[in-house]
Amino acid sequence: MDKTIKYINENKKRYLSELEEFLKIPSISTNPENADDVKRCASFVSDKMNEAGLENVKIYETKGHPVVYGDWLKAGDDKITILIYGHYDVQPVDPINLWTNPPFEPIIKNNKIYARGATDDKGQVYIHLKSIEAILKNESKLPVNVKFVIEGEEEIGSEHLTPFLEKYKDMLKCDYVVVSDTAMYGEGQPAITYGLRGLSYNEILLTGPNRDLHSGSFGGTVENPLNALCNIISKLKDEKGKILIPGFYDDVKPLSDKEREEFKKLPYDETVYKSDLEVDELFGEEGYINEERRTARPTLDVNGIWGGFQGEGAKTVLPSKAGAKVSMRLVPNQDPDKIDKLFTDFVTKLAPKSVKVEIKNLHNAKPAITPIDSPAMNCAVEALKKAYGKDVLFTREGGSIPIVNTFQEILNAPTVLIGFGLHTENAHSPDEHFDLTNYYTGIESITYFLEELGKIK
Amino acid sequence: MDKTIKYINENKKRYLSELEEFLKIPSISTNPENADDVKRCASFVSDKMNEAGLENVKIYETKGHPVVYGDWLKAGDDKITILIYGHYDVQPVDPINLWTNPPFEPIIKNNKIYARGATDDKGQVYIHLKSIEAILKNESKLPVNVKFVIEGEEEIGSEHLTPFLEKYKDMLKCDYVVVSDTAMYGEGQPAITYGLRGLSYNEILLTGPNRDLHSGSFGGTVENPLNALCNIISKLKDEKGKILIPGFYDDVKPLSDKEREEFKKLPYDETVYKSDLEVDELFGEEGYINEERRTARPTLDVNGIWGGFQGEGAKTVLPSKAGAKVSMRLVPNQDPDKIDKLFTDFVTKLAPKSVKVEIKNLHNAKPAITPIDSPAMNCAVEALKKAYGKDVLFTREGGSIPIVNTFQEILNAPTVLIGFGLHTENAHSPDEHFDLTNYYTGIESITYFLEELGKIK
Repeated sequence: MDKTIKYINENKKRYLSELEEFLKIPSISTNPENADDVKRCASFVSDKMNEAGLENVKIYETKGHPVVYGDWLKAGDDKITILIYGHYDVQPVDPINLWTNPPFEPIIKNNKIYARGATDDKGQVYIHLKSIEAILKNESKLPVNVKFVIEGEEEIGSEHLTPFLEKYKDMLKCDYVVVSDTAMYGEGQPAITYGLRGLSYNEILLTGPNRDLHSGSFGGTVENPLNALCNIISKLKDEKGKILIPGFYDDVKPLSDKEREEFKKLPYDETVYKSDLEVDELFGEEGYINEERRTARPTLDVNGIWGGFQGEGAKTVLPSKAGAKVSMRLVPNQDPDKIDKLFTDFVTKLAPKSVKVEIKNLHNAKPAITPIDSPAMNCAVEALKKAYGKDVLFTREGGSIPIVNTFQEILNAPTVLIGFGLHTENAHSPDEHFDLTNYYTGIESITYFLEELGKIK
Repeated sequence: MDKTIKYINENKKRYLSELEEFLKIPSISTNPENADDVKRCASFVSDKMNEAGLENVKIYETKGHPVVYGDWLKAGDDKITILIYGHYDVQPVDPINLWTNPPFEPIIKNNKIYARGATDDKGQVYIHLKSIEAILKNESKLPVNVKFVIEGEEEIGSEHLTPFLEKYKDMLKCDYVVVSDTAMYGEGQPAITYGLRGLSYNEILLTGPNRDLHSGSFGGTVENPLNALCNIISKLKDEKGKILIPGFYDDVKPLSDKEREEFKKLPYDETVYKSDLEVDELFGEEGYINEERRTARPTLDVNGIWGGFQGEGAKTVLPSKAGAKVSMRLVPNQDPDKIDKLFTDFVTKLAPKSVKVEIKNLHNAKPAITPIDSPAMNCAVEALKKAYGKDVLFTREGGSIPIVNTFQEILNAPTVLIGFGLHTENAHSPDEHFDLTNYYTGIESITYFLEELGKIK
C-alpha cells in the first residue's frame, strides 16, 4: 500500500477543495425549505462515488430524503464484505448569529475547516470515499468487497432508512458495517467506540387560556402555562441529576466493575474540560465520574423552550401557550418506546387541571453495545495504531447512532465505529469544524484498515 | 348641553373614520423600528388637538418618544382645572399569526372596531378629544379649564414623562387628573377605578457552557441552563399561588372587611369567566375570591421564556443560554424597588454555581389608591349614571397606570379613572378591539362630566 499512501499525501490539496464543495451544500434534513439542497447533496455524493471507481452507484428515493448506494464487489468470495455507512445531511444552523463565518461557506483556520457538517458527518464520509479512490487508482483492486450506504436523514432519526434496508436486505448483505460518525478520545488519541446511548426526544405543549391575556387584568386568577411548564420540568430531575420519572432506571444495565476500572483509566482532565466550556462547576449524576456520566449513564435535557414575549423590552402578557423540547439519553438496556410512555404518563400526571397538555414523540433511538473482540475490530485497532502511531482506546459515546441497532437487526451484522472527529469540534453547534490532520490521517487509517480486513480468512 | 349631545350623535360616522386613521399608525413604543411611526402618531394627535379647538398645542420632544400638549384655559379663575392624560403608543403585536385581521388595518365587526390600540388607549384618548371638540363647536366655551397630556411611552414605563412633568410643573398645574385607560365592570355597567396594581418586571438570563453543545456528547456532565431556569422559576411561587420570595408580602396592606364585602357584591360569574377563557379550572391564591386575586392581591407571572431550539423537528442541543421575563403585580403598599431587590437576591441565591446569572429590571410601577369621595369623583359618578342610565360601581384594576402616583407626587393632584374599555377586549393580545357603543357613549359621558365639573365652586 506504500504507493497508495504516497498518492494520498500528494493529493491532500484536491481532497480539501472537494470537501469544501461538499460542505457548501446546505443539506439540513429537518428544514422543508432545504429539501432541494438535500437532493443536490445526494447527487454530489453519487458523482463522487463514480469518480472513486465504485460501481452500481444509484440514488434510491425514499418517502423522505434519498439514500445513495455504490459498491465494489470484485475482491472475491474468499474475502469479507463490509458496508460503509454515513450521512450527508446536517443539523440546523441556528443560532446563526453565533457563527463567526457563514455555516455553508467553509474556511480554513489553524489547520481546521469550519462549516456545518464538517465533522458530523460529511468530513468523515469523505475520508472513506477518498481512501477507496486512492486504493483503486494505485492497486486497481480493493482488498475486500465494499458497499456504501450514505443516507440523508440521520439528523432527523433515519426514519426511511429501515424500510430501505429491509427492501434491499440481499443487496446490502455484509459481514460488518463500518461507521465513521464518532469522535477520537482527544487530539492524536485514536479510539474505537463500543457503546452508544439511545434517545427519546419529546415535545411538551401546554395551553392555558384560549388567548394571550393582559397580565395585569387577569394575572392571579388563571394558570400561566409558562409557570406550569417550569413546574413540570423542574420535577423531572432532582438537584443531584437523578431522573425522577417512575420506572426510568428499571432496565438500566449496571456498569461492571471491569468497565468502571476502564473508565477510571481514561486520561480525563477536569480542569481542561471545565475551561473548554468556561463553567465554574460541572453538574452530573451523583456517584459517577464525568466520563461515565457523559457516555454510560442516562440523562434528561431540555433542548428548547418557548412561549410568551421574547422580544426586547417589557410586554405584560399572560400567554396562552407554552412549549418545550425535552430529550432523554438512554443506555443499555433501556427501551425508548417504554421510556416514552413513562415520560408521557408522568408529565400528564404532573400537569395541573388548569392547563391542557399535549405530548409528541419526535425521535427515538435505541442504545447500543458492540463486541470489542471481533476480527474486524482488531483490524481497526491495528490500522489506527499504524496511522497514528499510538495505542487505541476503547470508549463509549454519549450520542446516538440509531442505525447501529437497525444494522444488527436487519442485516445481522455488527458495527465497527471508527471515529475521526473531536468532541471539541462543535458538532450541532455554531462554528462546527473538523481537524484537517484527522481528515488526512483518517484517509490513511481507512486504507490500512481495508488492507488489514483483506487478511481475514 | 342638549345641542352638543345632538351634535355628537350626528357626527358618529366621522368620529369612527377619524379613529380608524389614528389606529392605522403602528405606534409600538418598544420597537426601535417603529420610532418614526410613533413620531407620526404624535403629529396626528397634535393636529386633532388643533382641530378640536385646543390652544398652545405643541409636541414636546423628550429623550424618548414625544409628549403632546394642548389646553383651553378660558373658563375663568373661578372654575377648576383638569389635566386629561392618555397615551398614543401601543403594545407589540406578536404573536402576529394569531390576529384574524392585520393589527393596523382596523375593521368593524358586530359594532366593535378591531385593531391594536383600539381600547388601550387610542379609542379612549379620542373620546376626550371629540367631546372637547363638540362642546367648543356648540357652546363655544368649556365649563372648566382643560389641559391635555398625551404621551408615547406608557407601554414601556413612561420613563421620560416624569422629567417632563417636573420641568413643566407650573404649566401643568391642575386640580384633578382625568385618565381613561381602564375598563368598565362589564357591558353596560359603568365603573370607576379607585385602585391600581403596581409592577416589577425583570429579565433573568442564565449562561451555562460557553457554546451550544451536542446533548449526546455532553449531556449528563454540565448544567443545562434551561433546566436550571425552570428550577429557579418553579421555586418562585408555590402550588397554591403563594409567592415564595422572602419578605415579598411584608408591606402588603391587608384588605379591610369593608373592602372584602364590596368585592363580594361584584356581579362576578365564574362560569362565564371560565368559558370566556376556555379553561376547565381557574388558578389563584388560596383564601381570596377571583376579583380580589385579579385586582387587590399581588401576583407573579412569567411573561416570556426562551432558549435552545424552537424550530420544527428534533435538534439535540444542550444550549448555552436561557432567558425569561418575569413580572410581579404589586398592591399597596409594596415598593417596586424594594421588591426588585428581594427578587434579584432570591433568584441569585437559587441559581446553581454551575451557571452564570444576570438579572435586569425592565420596568417598575408603584401601586395606587385614589380617594373615592372627592368632588370630581362625584361628578364622574353623576355623568356616567346619566350617560349609561345605570348606577356606577367602584372597582380596582389589576393593571398598572404608573403615572397615577407620579401625578400625585409631582402635581399634587388626585386622579379620576373613568374607563370605557372592557376586560374582554384583548388589550395586549391578538384581535384587540373596542366596543363602539362605549366609544360614542364615552364621548357623551365626558361631555356630561365636564358639565358637572363646571358646577364645582
